[in-house]
Amino acid sequence: MKKILNDPFSYVDEMLEGLCAAHPEFYAQPEPRVIARAGGVTQGKVGIVTGGGSGHLPIFTGYVGKGLLDATAIGDVFASPSVDQMAAAMRQANGGAGILRLYGNYGGDVMNFDMAGEMLEMEDIPSTTVVLADDIVSAPPEEAAKRRGVAGMVYAFKCAGAKAEEMADLAEVTRVAQKTADACRSIGMALTSCTVPQAGKPTFEIGDDEMEMGMGIHGEPGIWRDKLKPADAITDEMIDRLLADMPLGSGERISLLVNSLGATPPEELYIMYRRAKARLEDAGITIAVPLVGRYATSMEMTGATLTWCRLDAELEALLKAPAACAYWTV
Amino acid sequence: MKKILNDPFSYVDEMLEGLCAAHPEFYAQPEPRVIARAGGVTQGKVGIVTGGGSGHLPIFTGYVGKGLLDATAIGDVFASPSVDQMAAAMRQANGGAGILRLYGNYGGDVMNFDMAGEMLEMEDIPSTTVVLADDIVSAPPEEAAKRRGVAGMVYAFKCAGAKAEEMADLAEVTRVAQKTADACRSIGMALTSCTVPQAGKPTFEIGDDEMEMGMGIHGEPGIWRDKLKPADAITDEMIDRLLADMPLGSGERISLLVNSLGATPPEELYIMYRRAKARLEDAGITIAVPLVGRYATSMEMTGATLTWCRLDAELEALLKAPAACAYWTV
Repeated sequence: MKKILNDPFSYVDEMLEGLCAAHPEFYAQPEPRVIARAGGVTQGKVGIVTGGGSGHLPIFTGYVGKGLLDATAIGDVFASPSVDQMAAAMRQANGGAGILRLYGNYGGDVMNFDMAGEMLEMEDIPSTTVVLADDIVSAPPEEAAKRRGVAGMVYAFKCAGAKAEEMADLAEVTRVAQKTADACRSIGMALTSCTVPQAGKPTFEIGDDEMEMGMGIHGEPGIWRDKLKPADAITDEMIDRLLADMPLGSGERISLLVNSLGATPPEELYIMYRRAKARLEDAGITIAVPLVGRYATSMEMTGATLTWCRLDAELEALLKAPAACAYWTV
Repeated sequence: MKKILNDPFSYVDEMLEGLCAAHPEFYAQPEPRVIARAGGVTQGKVGIVTGGGSGHLPIFTGYVGKGLLDATAIGDVFASPSVDQMAAAMRQANGGAGILRLYGNYGGDVMNFDMAGEMLEMEDIPSTTVVLADDIVSAPPEEAAKRRGVAGMVYAFKCAGAKAEEMADLAEVTRVAQKTADACRSIGMALTSCTVPQAGKPTFEIGDDEMEMGMGIHGEPGIWRDKLKPADAITDEMIDRLLADMPLGSGERISLLVNSLGATPPEELYIMYRRAKARLEDAGITIAVPLVGRYATSMEMTGATLTWCRLDAELEALLKAPAACAYWTV
């Protein structure tokens, strides 16, 4: 395992210690596995909480900040946080206006966050849930509720975060989060695996000349595995699959996120973005807010994901509203 | 070669096309291998130009922006730009107040930028040079002028850029750039190689359980190669070597940059930062402006570098002055 670490079992805690030490203007650590805004809770504002496994920076923890999230619960690498950790994160985000739980559709996260919500209800802290399920490969359209959540979370954090910052009520923030979730579609492809520190070996094996289309961010199986194709062919297939799942008409506006799974450098993302933009513009679609970089990763995994968020005037304005965390400033 | 690309020979040009398409608010491409500020030149301001090989994003091109650079000349991967490309970048940065050439100490870059400076002199555009030579492993202290420039460039771009934004004259901007260069020290370590697209195979071979201390960002040989050590031991040795080269006393202030060479994820950088901070604070040193992330990379190389910039009131204020590019907002 080629990683710069001490003990695999202290990986997450040492990472969090360094994260908060490096960015004290953004992150506070009120409990060992909870990160909250450094400035504390905003009274009267809806709190937005997320949570999930470690190893995906900036997701989840990195998006705690003004115009984004209020707190996050942090699990081990690729593992759900506990019910208690989620409940603790929710208490940290409680400004008296209710809490939105906003996270990716993974079994353990859903189960634990539901139980945490019930715990908080007994403390008279109301909460709602919006779950991201944007990975089109993970289930067919007729079973869209079974899909996994991936980089679409970034859009949901941003738009719901901006709405909460306007001091909208819990129903409104929840509506915006669900609308954003519904507007997002993602597809990924991977070239190499990552290694979970506590496992010590790659999650999956793949040939030196192979790629896998549609692979999930934890190494979940994709659609096909074959010889590595050229960037334009890869991008074309990803765009075609996204369009088949959510047809877009001429004149529509989207934000497109070309995201690295970690090791894939920005140089390659730009080669993909160039092609994706040309393809979409040929179809009369405008990319209003392009995002290219590392927004949702799997440590040192090689590969990329494409996500789009279909925009209307409301979502575009929320996407362009000010926000600030250590990884993203708008 | 596991990269998402089309033709290795179009890698740089397609990357630049995507970069400018993704970030039109920051970058313009007045010539095929020149990137300049999207907003055009600022009349009366000293222009700051850099240049170097591709494959190091955000260095060099990414740091074009307000409070940072004015233009950059872009070579092939790990190759110097041509004299003509450098001269063209200098013309793009010319606001009538002279130009600072600010780049890393590599033979081809120095030779070509000197010739470009002579060409511009014949066009009555004066320029000065400051060369970064911050990699302490690349030559002993008595031959410090032979050292290579690495992530210290980030500090020089930032501080000189902030000074130029104050509309200081060329002598003053040059003084600040040289002062910053003199205040920086770096050391790197690598776990795996990257692959230059046109070469098609890794620059160097290294065992599955090995690391190399002191390796340069293009794979230049380091001090030792041995079994991978724990993060704290690696960090301790890097800090010790930096302190041996530039002793710091109790009460001093520095900015510390923990930089990924590309594939190493932020999680591991934070584990290193945590240790480096503890070591430096034990010695009475304050880290005033911590930077942790990908600031100077080698595509998908695995490894990290530590850089510090010794601060006085002037440099600290310049480091904290506003700046904005696609990779860094202050």
